[in-house]
Amino acid sequence: MRGAVIHGTKDIRFEDRPDPVVTEPTDAVIRTVAACVCGSDLWRYRGIQEVLESTPIGHEYVGIVEQVGDAVTTVKPGDFVVGGFLHSDNTCAVCAKGMQANCQHGGGFDGCQAEKIRIPDADGTLLATPGQPDADLIPSLLALSDVMATGWHAAVSADVRPGSSVVVVGDGAVGLSGVLAAAQLGATTIIAMSRHEPRQRVAREFGATHVIAERGDAGLAQVRELTDGIGADAVLECVGTENARAQAVAYARPGGMIGLVGVPHGDLPTDELFWANKGIRGGVAPVRAYLPHLLDLVLRREIDPGKVFDLTLPLSEVAEAYLAMDERRAIKVLLQP
Amino acid sequence: MRGAVIHGTKDIRFEDRPDPVVTEPTDAVIRTVAACVCGSDLWRYRGIQEVLESTPIGHEYVGIVEQVGDAVTTVKPGDFVVGGFLHSDNTCAVCAKGMQANCQHGGGFDGCQAEKIRIPDADGTLLATPGQPDADLIPSLLALSDVMATGWHAAVSADVRPGSSVVVVGDGAVGLSGVLAAAQLGATTIIAMSRHEPRQRVAREFGATHVIAERGDAGLAQVRELTDGIGADAVLECVGTENARAQAVAYARPGGMIGLVGVPHGDLPTDELFWANKGIRGGVAPVRAYLPHLLDLVLRREIDPGKVFDLTLPLSEVAEAYLAMDERRAIKVLLQP
Repeated sequence: MRGAVIHGTKDIRFEDRPDPVVTEPTDAVIRTVAACVCGSDLWRYRGIQEVLESTPIGHEYVGIVEQVGDAVTTVKPGDFVVGGFLHSDNTCAVCAKGMQANCQHGGGFDGCQAEKIRIPDADGTLLATPGQPDADLIPSLLALSDVMATGWHAAVSADVRPGSSVVVVGDGAVGLSGVLAAAQLGATTIIAMSRHEPRQRVAREFGATHVIAERGDAGLAQVRELTDGIGADAVLECVGTENARAQAVAYARPGGMIGLVGVPHGDLPTDELFWANKGIRGGVAPVRAYLPHLLDLVLRREIDPGKVFDLTLPLSEVAEAYLAMDERRAIKVLLQP
Repeated sequence: MRGAVIHGTKDIRFEDRPDPVVTEPTDAVIRTVAACVCGSDLWRYRGIQEVLESTPIGHEYVGIVEQVGDAVTTVKPGDFVVGGFLHSDNTCAVCAKGMQANCQHGGGFDGCQAEKIRIPDADGTLLATPGQPDADLIPSLLALSDVMATGWHAAVSADVRPGSSVVVVGDGAVGLSGVLAAAQLGATTIIAMSRHEPRQRVAREFGATHVIAERGDAGLAQVRELTDGIGADAVLECVGTENARAQAVAYARPGGMIGLVGVPHGDLPTDELFWANKGIRGGVAPVRAYLPHLLDLVLRREIDPGKVFDLTLPLSEVAEAYLAMDERRAIKVLLQP
């Protein structure tokens, strides 16, 4: 089969790779129906994270089960499945607390921008849809494997609830998904911080009540104006840079919560948090915990997180997909084998 | 009247001071029924925080209203009142969110180890009991002005709920109050970290199901043994030192919450928090927010937070009260005018 391999900075190649096979009795092998490129894949692409050796890449997928190991009981060949970007057994003490991203026996896997994928811990990682989903739902189902679940995690971590005022920092696919999550959780004021017109449009479609293009003091003043002068109940931090994190802290009201999902690239002012009674919570999203609910919302067409895909390419053009995201010509690129 | 004044390190004197008077229409002046010494008063006493000029000291009190300003409507002369250690208007946008410690027009006040006290923002700070309380309830009512409300804030911030497993770091009056709060909020495993037999005894009376005397790796191993090997759902950090904060982070399970009320004297490992999906929340307790509920619990004799007072002295012996706490001969000293 063929799949994407990263060989170095800006060097993604679509090439022959060995067909994945079931190696553990808990494995499944799926035939990919759709995959995509993640903002976090760009760290290696851009050279921010060094590529030490050529590596299959990609961690988001939906597909059809081809083969399962003897111990797999919840999915079978022919099933259409969605799954998270980390594998988890979904049975350990940590999974039982709903924190599958930190499963005691789980971990990451790479190489999903490919025609076939080996999924470890299939029972604890995948969820089958009832029957084959309509083709137009594929983008939204694919979004569940990472960005939508991660935006949801930001909103849950920030304790968004009916009536909350929410600021979303970051207008990438995760931030936009955070807007959608906040709306679903009942927030009534949802402020998207965005300077990019196409992203602003998606934010509004997802439920943003306000869009603020300014940053720094000007942006803060506008947030305050929309939140009784005190800041938001909840802030979703979907970037991770020191600057974005500092802004997120500033946008929260005293006693507010900041949900963190941007991979940390900078410190947080913990003393400032304390004296203002602001809290932080979050990390890598436990996709499997949210998947049943989010899958239900997609299948009932109550959410349409697939709108974050604004470019679709054949999987064979994966290199162009990276370039389009790197140059910000696309929010997120869907790849079709 | 007479009251305590701190003149420098280890120099507390009980001396003549001007009678407090109503200076703002929102003020009340109360005659002190009981006051006490706070762990935080010891920073100045011990010289950790410099005493720049002689200052009346003390911020915990219960008393009887003697005089109120024209704008005061909810308390009147003769009322027995409890109140927080910060004044708040209880009407601003921040107070409306239940975060009265960060009231937009509030602040601190000192000098409560005295025969009379001027309370700013009386309506937003004080709460009158229905009638005069029984004398044996005075210690528990006094505990509401700081330590019990602060322990409660730690538990609320750490998201303690029915069935939670909880570790309490710190066996001072606040930590012990945190144990009591966790029990009230329905925690079923409550682990007090304490090496001091009298404090261990109070912790057990307050609802601790386990006491761990060890620290470091040995203490962590014991916490894990009691929490399915993964750590506690909630940790109450009631010390504030860098070491205590690091321990608190270690005791929490992946996805757990750490409620911070110890005044910060050290950083927190925010990257470690992120990768383990652990959250932090807390700060200075919004006493006024919790006061109605806690007062009700005390008056119905459902909680007895006054047990943290293990020494009672006449107010005139306030210097000895400081010494007893400094030398850890007492957990907390109650002062009677």
